[in-house]
Amino acid sequence: MVKVVLLGQGMAASHFAVGLERIKLGELEPYGIPLANHELPIDIRDIEIVAGYDVDRDKIGKSMYDIAKKLLDDQIDIPASLKDIKVYEGIHLGSLKGLPIDPRGLEDELTLSQAIDTLIEEWRSMDADVFINVVTTEYTKEYDNFSKLVDAIESNLRDGLSASQVYAYAVYKYSKEVKPAAFINLNPTPLANDPAFVSAYESVNAIILGDDGATGATPLTADLLEHLANRNRYVEFIVQFNIGGNLDFLSLTQPSKNLMKEKTKSSIVEDILGYDAPHYIKPTGYLEPLGDKKFVSIHIGYKTFNGLNDSIYINARINDSPALAGYMVDLARLGKLLLDKGFKGTVYEVNAFYMKKPGPKEAKSVARIIAYRNLLNWLKSL
Amino acid sequence: MVKVVLLGQGMAASHFAVGLERIKLGELEPYGIPLANHELPIDIRDIEIVAGYDVDRDKIGKSMYDIAKKLLDDQIDIPASLKDIKVYEGIHLGSLKGLPIDPRGLEDELTLSQAIDTLIEEWRSMDADVFINVVTTEYTKEYDNFSKLVDAIESNLRDGLSASQVYAYAVYKYSKEVKPAAFINLNPTPLANDPAFVSAYESVNAIILGDDGATGATPLTADLLEHLANRNRYVEFIVQFNIGGNLDFLSLTQPSKNLMKEKTKSSIVEDILGYDAPHYIKPTGYLEPLGDKKFVSIHIGYKTFNGLNDSIYINARINDSPALAGYMVDLARLGKLLLDKGFKGTVYEVNAFYMKKPGPKEAKSVARIIAYRNLLNWLKSL
Amino acid sequence: MVKVVLLGQGMAASHFAVGLERIKLGELEPYGIPLANHELPIDIRDIEIVAGYDVDRDKIGKSMYDIAKKLLDDQIDIPASLKDIKVYEGIHLGSLKGLPIDPRGLEDELTLSQAIDTLIEEWRSMDADVFINVVTTEYTKEYDNFSKLVDAIESNLRDGLSASQVYAYAVYKYSKEVKPAAFINLNPTPLANDPAFVSAYESVNAIILGDDGATGATPLTADLLEHLANRNRYVEFIVQFNIGGNLDFLSLTQPSKNLMKEKTKSSIVEDILGYDAPHYIKPTGYLEPLGDKKFVSIHIGYKTFNGLNDSIYINARINDSPALAGYMVDLARLGKLLLDKGFKGTVYEVNAFYMKKPGPKEAKSVARIIAYRNLLNWLKSL
Amino acid sequence: MVKVVLLGQGMAASHFAVGLERIKLGELEPYGIPLANHELPIDIRDIEIVAGYDVDRDKIGKSMYDIAKKLLDDQIDIPASLKDIKVYEGIHLGSLKGLPIDPRGLEDELTLSQAIDTLIEEWRSMDADVFINVVTTEYTKEYDNFSKLVDAIESNLRDGLSASQVYAYAVYKYSKEVKPAAFINLNPTPLANDPAFVSAYESVNAIILGDDGATGATPLTADLLEHLANRNRYVEFIVQFNIGGNLDFLSLTQPSKNLMKEKTKSSIVEDILGYDAPHYIKPTGYLEPLGDKKFVSIHIGYKTFNGLNDSIYINARINDSPALAGYMVDLARLGKLLLDKGFKGTVYEVNAFYMKKPGPKEAKSVARIIAYRNLLNWLKSL
Repeated sequence: MVKVVLLGQGMAASHFAVGLERIKLGELEPYGIPLANHELPIDIRDIEIVAGYDVDRDKIGKSMYDIAKKLLDDQIDIPASLKDIKVYEGIHLGSLKGLPIDPRGLEDELTLSQAIDTLIEEWRSMDADVFINVVTTEYTKEYDNFSKLVDAIESNLRDGLSASQVYAYAVYKYSKEVKPAAFINLNPTPLANDPAFVSAYESVNAIILGDDGATGATPLTADLLEHLANRNRYVEFIVQFNIGGNLDFLSLTQPSKNLMKEKTKSSIVEDILGYDAPHYIKPTGYLEPLGDKKFVSIHIGYKTFNGLNDSIYINARINDSPALAGYMVDLARLGKLLLDKGFKGTVYEVNAFYMKKPGPKEAKSVARIIAYRNLLNWLKSL
Repeated sequence: MVKVVLLGQGMAASHFAVGLERIKLGELEPYGIPLANHELPIDIRDIEIVAGYDVDRDKIGKSMYDIAKKLLDDQIDIPASLKDIKVYEGIHLGSLKGLPIDPRGLEDELTLSQAIDTLIEEWRSMDADVFINVVTTEYTKEYDNFSKLVDAIESNLRDGLSASQVYAYAVYKYSKEVKPAAFINLNPTPLANDPAFVSAYESVNAIILGDDGATGATPLTADLLEHLANRNRYVEFIVQFNIGGNLDFLSLTQPSKNLMKEKTKSSIVEDILGYDAPHYIKPTGYLEPLGDKKFVSIHIGYKTFNGLNDSIYINARINDSPALAGYMVDLARLGKLLLDKGFKGTVYEVNAFYMKKPGPKEAKSVARIIAYRNLLNWLKSL
Repeated sequence: MVKVVLLGQGMAASHFAVGLERIKLGELEPYGIPLANHELPIDIRDIEIVAGYDVDRDKIGKSMYDIAKKLLDDQIDIPASLKDIKVYEGIHLGSLKGLPIDPRGLEDELTLSQAIDTLIEEWRSMDADVFINVVTTEYTKEYDNFSKLVDAIESNLRDGLSASQVYAYAVYKYSKEVKPAAFINLNPTPLANDPAFVSAYESVNAIILGDDGATGATPLTADLLEHLANRNRYVEFIVQFNIGGNLDFLSLTQPSKNLMKEKTKSSIVEDILGYDAPHYIKPTGYLEPLGDKKFVSIHIGYKTFNGLNDSIYINARINDSPALAGYMVDLARLGKLLLDKGFKGTVYEVNAFYMKKPGPKEAKSVARIIAYRNLLNWLKSL
Repeated sequence: MVKVVLLGQGMAASHFAVGLERIKLGELEPYGIPLANHELPIDIRDIEIVAGYDVDRDKIGKSMYDIAKKLLDDQIDIPASLKDIKVYEGIHLGSLKGLPIDPRGLEDELTLSQAIDTLIEEWRSMDADVFINVVTTEYTKEYDNFSKLVDAIESNLRDGLSASQVYAYAVYKYSKEVKPAAFINLNPTPLANDPAFVSAYESVNAIILGDDGATGATPLTADLLEHLANRNRYVEFIVQFNIGGNLDFLSLTQPSKNLMKEKTKSSIVEDILGYDAPHYIKPTGYLEPLGDKKFVSIHIGYKTFNGLNDSIYINARINDSPALAGYMVDLARLGKLLLDKGFKGTVYEVNAFYMKKPGPKEAKSVARIIAYRNLLNWLKSL
């Protein structure tokens, strides 16, 4: 059994809750879950969602059923059993500025310390094991020094702090005070890539995985580049456009957030090819009618044998949130499994497959097909 | 040093000869050669082409320079040093029927046995090590029984024999009578997939690799399917169109030859996915102005998490023959390396990466990215 | 008011019946109907479907509701009012040979003459005005001579006769004996392109429009070619692949039927460009999971100013039958309008927009955007 | 005979000069010139380029041969006859700020008035007829009032003035003082859309055509939208990405210039469809290795009959500058023809086909196929 808290009750968390429930009800095949056909000590049916957290006034206090009904009802029948899972008030720290959402957070009325202690008490009562961070992309300054971060939080100095960092700190404190837990960061905020966080988690036998879930165009591009690299084809350029109509794409129209995403997305090029092929890889825009099914356009030009030029064009329409939700089913289980097996800090073998910018900081991206093979081998060796 | 004979002096053989020469002259980067950046005991510069064979009256007796000049001159400067490599008369056995070529073969004037002995004598004088079969795609019946094949050849019963089979037999006989050699089959004719041929080659310490060079859309589709399989996405259909304007595409407009290609191309689907997703994968047509740069169009639909549908569209323009020529640079070296290391019969580790339908017969296709990783590990272990 | 008989109660006829009904019920916007926003003397709501005809044993005697329920239920709510429209037994003449359908036709038990008279009596009682031919694509020999056709039918010589021809003949006879009617041929069988049929229809003041509804990739290619021709860009090649999973695509896997379609599809190239640019334009294959939403892939290469090469790649997923059904809403109205206005034979201004191979025989294809503009002007002049 | 001055000696002007010369030499077919096959009173061979103007220190004083050699030599043989055409110093007004070019302009040493008078004297000695403005995209404030513009120029108040505006003013003054001339504005700066400029040109019997040459993705999208509108398909969204590696794309990475382009590109949607379908249409980025051959990716979703959804994906690689250069061959001739025929101000029939934002201000975009047809009819009526 693994008890999961969802941080950010948007499309991804709702798909996760609904899909998980439908699988439990036998209504749905476990497609989109990478390890669905591989035996893990923790079964998909062993996942129990104990709470969601959000900062949208329209969501706080509602059930996951209510929220999913609003977000997904045109496509999917929402299972009634989700009526029992409640969405709590979280922390925003201004992360929704510029978005058409009226935010409310615990820190509006409390100091950061008090807000964090409130969360920890709630989580203690839920007996939570794994926390999955799927809040909206935020701009975040890296913290090279954990004690500086602790100071800032304890002194209620909010400037330069992001919701993801404060949630990650709260889970660290929960791990220290209540029991070791796992924090899964599916957001580009550097956490599993921040040595300060990794060593803090290590010190309390907790797990931190991340950063930024590798769904969509980036892992596909990674595997395409590996395919070309295998043949020593010389990549002359890579264009990768992404446009969607969900809240995340809207938030990425803000230049500082876009930059966060561009960093995690672009790191694959040199890691895989061994040279920094000229590339334009970034979230490109927001267009509401595309909804959660983003449009991806990739164009790659390369030199083949005898100096001739080949070209590839890829277009795709990809459901953004379900792809991430499928990963969450594995990551919830892997988070708990790592705790059970006594791991601590971050675990590259897991990050390498599931994350755009796999931690720890010095780690490289490899082709996803290789990362998956390595993951299976590593799981077998446990 | 490895002495190479090219069987079929078309676009692929010409690109191989020209590109190899340009690399030796320092004019060309070794792009498109999978193992260019990995140390092999035999260097690219150690490859020496000793002869080409063809059955086009306009090519026999000419130099590789003359032929390359005609085929590739609009794109590439042809090195003068190719004037010293001659193209000899080969065997056709009707394989060019229906194509706009006036064929002439040794067997027009001689019995098959005599023709084969003529070849063997020529090869003996050249001291040939590796034979690369790049004749035009033919329709070929499988031979379950090697002695029946030998009987047919010795009795000059030509019906049901293809040029590829007779060349492979000739190299077997050369291996027996002169010295063990390697036969690289880049044609869909089942040879490395024919147990009769594999055990005959084993019996004379010779090497046979094949079948059908995995360039272009098929290995790309293989890696895409693996990418989807890694995420347990359920593939609902695969469309893969191919159209080109070179002689090979022209020959594939003949239904029986098309069928040969369809078999080697389709085998990847079930091998990689574990289920036979509905697919339309075959060479689709011939259109002269496309030339050697084929147009590939792929469309894949799959189910993601929560039962939703994603779709991918890929278009590409790919230089067909250079892709194969780049592989030939490795395969010439690997053929000789395997002989030197005492291997015999066929070698799956090599075939798995370079071939559409890797022999031996019972072998499976795996994703190419995995096959490449396995190949590197296997090379290290030699 | 216009009373419509549908010949061939497949996907297109079912979409037409369902969509028309939903528009009447106010449930559906009239999207996909070219003249929806232009006033015609006959309103969309004036169309009344009086019968369908089919030769599938599973359809004969059923209601349009039953059939639509089976064909379209996964996508669309079927209006109950379709329960009142019956599907009658038609004529097949072997047109379904090779398809997974067990056919039954009036001509199985009757001579052709008797079968035709049976149809005419049914139509008389329905007071039918317009007949829309959407039977499955058949292979058909052209009849240069109408009296030979009449002789064949009257003598019950069925060889070389297709269902479309016999239906067209029956409507001719109905026009002569009962009242002038309109026959809309959305099938590649040459009828509006057959001078024998056109003059026979003229002689009885009837209307015959056709041939082959121009939905999907062909009119799109026509407009693209016009776009390039407008700029004097020199088209070097055109590739146009089509693959679908409906019955029509299945029937097009039969080479003789495919040829029928290839002819109507290819005629646009020289008509629009003024030269016969090398092209591969034909229905390419059948893949069941694509369903009625065909996949189209187009690739065009051309020379621009200063001798440089540009290239365009188009992929599309297009609902095949609804596109045709939208045209049927106009054509039913235009057929009646032409009768009311005293036209006879065929009318190029209508065919030029709606048909792949617009009749009469000597007529040329023009860009569809031009044909639409001409159609509007012509309608204004009526 | 028409004497042409090129304002901005970049890729487009160089392609124009080289292509025109090659056509005169009989080396090149007139592909890419819309009216090449239609008789105009002024033949292509009647065009004489008398001068180029630029503000790049590396170009001023050089010949068109030198510049073309540098820009186009990898693709095209540059005719030696271009050595006789000189590039003069122009006006920049800061339009190159942020680009990797060291600019020099007449106004660096002179007042604006003096600079303009210098130009007029040069043009008088060249006896120039037509001026084609192909300077790099600039950000420009509209001038509602011509006398305010005149005041600003005469008072040497440079703030808010762009090079395009000053050139257009200089040609106005040249028309007044020397002889009526034509100004062709292929830049997004609103000039033919600025009533102040149009009436000023009218007052001196001069011609001003514009704005922003309609090559590439925008006219293609226009014709696609017309194609859909003809069928009353309801467009739900339009995505149109553009990325290139030439100087113009580099300048468009500056937000204010991008905005200029977005305006001219987006105006087609509502003009053609009749409703403002949600769209993302703008130059998207710069990637050097793409060079002048831009990558365009378009995705359109629409509703067809019966409420179902179709989708189209278009990818293209298009030589940017040659497309414009081909138009310039027509526009040079049309500019002179209009002067000869006594037209003045701007001419919608010409602008409607060649321009992204056809002037005058209140004019609408129509589908390009319609605009071309109208242009031919209008030319016939002259």
